[in-house]
Amino acid sequence: MASELFLMHQEALLAGTENLRGHQESLGAPSCQYRQSAHAGITLQYEAMYTIKVRSREREQMLEITDEVRRRLKDSGARAGVCVLFVRHTTAGLTVNENADPDVQRDMLHALRTLLPQQGLNFLHAEENSDAHIKATLVGSSVTVPFHDGELLLGRWQGIFLCEFDGGRERQVVLKIIGEAGQR
Amino acid sequence: MASELFLMHQEALLAGTENLRGHQESLGAPSCQYRQSAHAGITLQYEAMYTIKVRSREREQMLEITDEVRRRLKDSGARAGVCVLFVRHTTAGLTVNENADPDVQRDMLHALRTLLPQQGLNFLHAEENSDAHIKATLVGSSVTVPFHDGELLLGRWQGIFLCEFDGGRERQVVLKIIGEAGQR
Amino acid sequence: MASELFLMHQEALLAGTENLRGHQESLGAPSCQYRQSAHAGITLQYEAMYTIKVRSREREQMLEITDEVRRRLKDSGARAGVCVLFVRHTTAGLTVNENADPDVQRDMLHALRTLLPQQGLNFLHAEENSDAHIKATLVGSSVTVPFHDGELLLGRWQGIFLCEFDGGRERQVVLKIIGEAGQR
Repeated sequence: MASELFLMHQEALLAGTENLRGHQESLGAPSCQYRQSAHAGITLQYEAMYTIKVRSREREQMLEITDEVRRRLKDSGARAGVCVLFVRHTTAGLTVNENADPDVQRDMLHALRTLLPQQGLNFLHAEENSDAHIKATLVGSSVTVPFHDGELLLGRWQGIFLCEFDGGRERQVVLKIIGEAGQR
Repeated sequence: MASELFLMHQEALLAGTENLRGHQESLGAPSCQYRQSAHAGITLQYEAMYTIKVRSREREQMLEITDEVRRRLKDSGARAGVCVLFVRHTTAGLTVNENADPDVQRDMLHALRTLLPQQGLNFLHAEENSDAHIKATLVGSSVTVPFHDGELLLGRWQGIFLCEFDGGRERQVVLKIIGEAGQR
Repeated sequence: MASELFLMHQEALLAGTENLRGHQESLGAPSCQYRQSAHAGITLQYEAMYTIKVRSREREQMLEITDEVRRRLKDSGARAGVCVLFVRHTTAGLTVNENADPDVQRDMLHALRTLLPQQGLNFLHAEENSDAHIKATLVGSSVTVPFHDGELLLGRWQGIFLCEFDGGRERQVVLKIIGEAGQR
């Protein structure tokens, strides 16, 4: 009986693996890192990795990536867990804030620029972007957003943003999905 | 032998599930998301989710929620892993800081208000709370606190705070516990 | 067949446990918290915990700990997942930023000191380190860095730093590695 159960889990596991393989994206080398296992004949557990590429056009800009995250979460088939987002750059950050009124984003960049102007604070770093490095650290390089039943648990007004402080450039954001997959 | 071990795991798994079900709390729909499995006949692994509701009374306020987190961690039976806390609002943040002298909290709100006053920075957002949005992003929407042997690994002076920047309101904080359950 | 597979997993599990035990470091009580399991006969899954001790010499200082994290990640044998770092103090923070030009670190501490001077903001907290508490909250008490194929997914210019705001002192950083182990 136990053996049969276990064999069934193996088959579910392999099937789930096939389903996930289709959703990989590239981060130089292999980019979708998954681990799956079948527990109690019900769930598959795994972690998935994606790279989200974002192109900024201005020096300072807030670029919403909520839909990109949501799409990959759906693709992954994950049911419950956390999405960890990490920006691989030192002059851009990630944050969760309001996505309804664009004035909020304008006010945020304006206030940060007022507190930390590009010139005038006697910065030594020769690339004239010390302000961008500092803003990146204050905003932070990663955000963690929980999900449940396959849906991000964002509040009604929350969106996920890449905060560009020294663009325009192409930026890479790593998305790790850690949790539990649905029944397949 | 292996079959017997495996069957034993199944039973432990089901027993553990029953134990956890009692600790669910509501987040609209189902709110305690757990995944468990028995490994090596010793541990159960799972993730649990809770919602912590916090009521602020003033526009700016630091509200400690360490005890609420600690209680749910104990309820969950989790032994080692990380607690991820996420606030589902755009004008409140989460932080870990000193909980001994309330003057630290006063000084923090005072300094943030000095740098980012509600009026005077030519904000465009019409709700007169751009300062609160910016403070929320600077403080951050989530904190991650590791735990071991069922105890949060907070330092001696550390507490977990919701930082209210546009209260008084009821706020929701999602707590995800990701890790390993104790032996049941 | 299934039984044999399962037994094989048990053996791999125990072997993996032995391998990990050698890398424990002390956090008061036991400090390497691992959970492992064998899935599909291929991978071991676990979480590992380490404590990194950092000694600051000045009141304000950025101390890079990337190599310390990298070394423990390699020791753990983990293949894919996330490193969660958490500082157990209220006047120091953790950040990811540029590690090439030391002027970036100097400029960051300089700008924070300009915005939040130790004296002059009418702080009430009697220990004369309210500025340090506030900087710690703005920078944050934890960072989460994904890894893949055993390598941190840091960008080309990124390093992990402890930000000391009230040194010199010995500081403790907890490192939790959550993910999937390699084949052993």
